[in-house]
Amino acid sequence: MRIVIIGTGNVAHVLGRKIQDAGHDILQVAGRNEPAAVTLAAMFNCPFTVNWDYINLQADLYIVAISDAALENISTQLQLGKKLVVHTAGAVSKNVLKDVSTNYGVLYPLQSIRKERITIPAIPFLTDANTADDLTLIKDFAATLSDKVEVATDLERKKMHLAAVLVNNFTNHLYTLAADYCKKESIDFGMLFPLIKETADRIDNISPVIVQTGPAARGDKNTIKMHLQLLSTYPQLKILYEIFTASIEAAGKNQVTNDLL
Amino acid sequence: MRIVIIGTGNVAHVLGRKIQDAGHDILQVAGRNEPAAVTLAAMFNCPFTVNWDYINLQADLYIVAISDAALENISTQLQLGKKLVVHTAGAVSKNVLKDVSTNYGVLYPLQSIRKERITIPAIPFLTDANTADDLTLIKDFAATLSDKVEVATDLERKKMHLAAVLVNNFTNHLYTLAADYCKKESIDFGMLFPLIKETADRIDNISPVIVQTGPAARGDKNTIKMHLQLLSTYPQLKILYEIFTASIEAAGKNQVTNDLL
Repeated sequence: MRIVIIGTGNVAHVLGRKIQDAGHDILQVAGRNEPAAVTLAAMFNCPFTVNWDYINLQADLYIVAISDAALENISTQLQLGKKLVVHTAGAVSKNVLKDVSTNYGVLYPLQSIRKERITIPAIPFLTDANTADDLTLIKDFAATLSDKVEVATDLERKKMHLAAVLVNNFTNHLYTLAADYCKKESIDFGMLFPLIKETADRIDNISPVIVQTGPAARGDKNTIKMHLQLLSTYPQLKILYEIFTASIEAAGKNQVTNDLL
Repeated sequence: MRIVIIGTGNVAHVLGRKIQDAGHDILQVAGRNEPAAVTLAAMFNCPFTVNWDYINLQADLYIVAISDAALENISTQLQLGKKLVVHTAGAVSKNVLKDVSTNYGVLYPLQSIRKERITIPAIPFLTDANTADDLTLIKDFAATLSDKVEVATDLERKKMHLAAVLVNNFTNHLYTLAADYCKKESIDFGMLFPLIKETADRIDNISPVIVQTGPAARGDKNTIKMHLQLLSTYPQLKILYEIFTASIEAAGKNQVTNDLL
């Protein structure tokens, strides 16, 4: 398919690479940030424009990969007639595009996308559109990029985005706090990398509730007390430790109750 | 080296496999749980005993892989004279073994170890001993099992164990809560597996503080509000969401402050 990419950030960069690798034709990059547009257009060996009046109208699909905030005003800046246009946001309704074109939808990559990563990870897609024909087209296109493609309404996509915040943003923040703790205590955070990877790697083999271990799961009050003492000068981490401990204990009790039912 | 393994749980099982794969000789399995001892001894093609008076005294190293609680009373049950004995616990002092033998130490696998896993993950080890000679011996042995071996005092090991609780126990609990949320909302938790893996996989390439994204990191109050509404019937998850949001916002502010300094 012939594609125009609107936006020059991480998603535009990485989706563009995946789209080109899949054999599609990127006709143009459109972006307000000229140096970024130049770089991206050079990478895709295609023209660029910083003026959205000059967007190439020969493409089959227009992918708007810009921030949620910029998406809110997109219809005042971008007019594509009947051209099929999608955005890539998790928490924004597809209807934000309804005054951009008569044909619009969503191509949401359910992945944490960073252009610094040399190897592009697998990217599941949630798709949506305002007509059945467009939905088929978007799904078929997504299937050329990924083995995991599902259709999701605005509400389903928002829920999945929320779940993604839990397993990515919050998990990553735990890594950040642990790294900071290790640095301040002069212990080697790098020793934890195999554990971090294993915790994630087994997710498709063993349900996480089955492998929940640690002081909170086994009600080991001595270790919990010792950990809270170690955290006495880390107020932020101490609160999180207490909340998690209570939450893991509560989940364990629910588990027991469910087992009895 | 000639090894006796005391204990029959996950750690005994997986360490035993790794020890045998490295070419050492497992002389015996000792465990109170007879069916588990039988299974493990069959796997290692060695004898077993359920009576610790019959522990084979010809080994070079005795590895006590039992629960923290059982370790506390170990010296009333196990007497090994001058034989080198180690435990495998993160949060227990090496001194718990001082009345078991004159030569004792620690071989702590910094990994979440589950016998159900077919592929054994990389296992970093923290080592310790009461004499320099024993420490060398334990370190050299650990180096036959792993590329990552460090020496750590009781306190350093306890701190590393605490950091492991953050990146494993707490992360896994986030997975559990997300899985539960997806199930109740009839959305496919499996769609999140590539995201979960990517979040962990990049840990040795990009510092987690650099890749912190999401509504909290960018101060996106609309999305945060929408997520809290979606979580109105999930009180446990809602509290965690609020605490994480505040913690990520605070970390962002510290970051800005540090940048200015």
